[in-house]
Amino acid sequence: MRHLEEFSIGQTFTSGPVRVDERQIRAFAAEYDPQPFHLDAAAARDTIFRGLAASGWHTAALTMRLLVASDLKPAGGIVGAGFDELRWPRPVRPGDLLSLEAVVLDARPSASRPGQGLVRIQLTTVNQRGEPVQIASGTLVVPRRVPADALDPAELTAGAR
Amino acid sequence: MRHLEEFSIGQTFTSGPVRVDERQIRAFAAEYDPQPFHLDAAAARDTIFRGLAASGWHTAALTMRLLVASDLKPAGGIVGAGFDELRWPRPVRPGDLLSLEAVVLDARPSASRPGQGLVRIQLTTVNQRGEPVQIASGTLVVPRRVPADALDPAELTAGAR
Repeated sequence: MRHLEEFSIGQTFTSGPVRVDERQIRAFAAEYDPQPFHLDAAAARDTIFRGLAASGWHTAALTMRLLVASDLKPAGGIVGAGFDELRWPRPVRPGDLLSLEAVVLDARPSASRPGQGLVRIQLTTVNQRGEPVQIASGTLVVPRRVPADALDPAELTAGAR
Repeated sequence: MRHLEEFSIGQTFTSGPVRVDERQIRAFAAEYDPQPFHLDAAAARDTIFRGLAASGWHTAALTMRLLVASDLKPAGGIVGAGFDELRWPRPVRPGDLLSLEAVVLDARPSASRPGQGLVRIQLTTVNQRGEPVQIASGTLVVPRRVPADALDPAELTAGAR
């Protein structure tokens, strides 16, 4: 379990693969994204996807599963403050095998909460040919190892910068 | 079914509510985000969430379901090119009722694909108290009403700007 102090820029974590089959694509879509190109292979043929494709939100959810299974493991769990990039450069198809590469872009103390840190990560989800199917970057909330009340005021000010 | 020409800045679409119960929160988490604060009410009490909370990706998936059910209905379906903001300002709790407000921020022809347009939207998902639980903004790919091969070259150049 990693605290803020155990994260550094450039650290890389990998995970996967996880296989996506047609049943899973259709089940997710039926509940959360009921559109023909995610539900029905025949109907999908004449759409922009030219065949059955997983919902982008399904890919995002599978990416989260891969991230939870990775060695990233922040103390306190994987808690996302938010994302500022989420793209799906190509469709996920039935039978695809998805893997994740997570790279730490930044790690710093929170300005507003002295006991917490913020870790920026880039998440690239690729298929079995190494082609990106999702690119995302976001920020995780990660506890600091030193409890806030053990910090002296000078250090606290530095941490808040 | 709306083509690019039927979208304009400031248009607003609403949808919902949809109810989220504890069983759904735990089922989504078990498959896509298996962490204690999404799986077990007792274990969640001592975490940053102070009680069971839905995965942010569950909230995102439910938001998609609300968007599909709304009157937005682009011709060709709701196809996301990507998102550049995705935040979860507060947790979704068991029993919450989620509603969506989608506002058109921009609507313009695609620079690279003459037959398509890009519609930027802001999606705000709120709970039964009107408090935002997710704020997202992204871009949808929407077909133009005029087929690309019916455009004269001058118009095509203008559209590609």
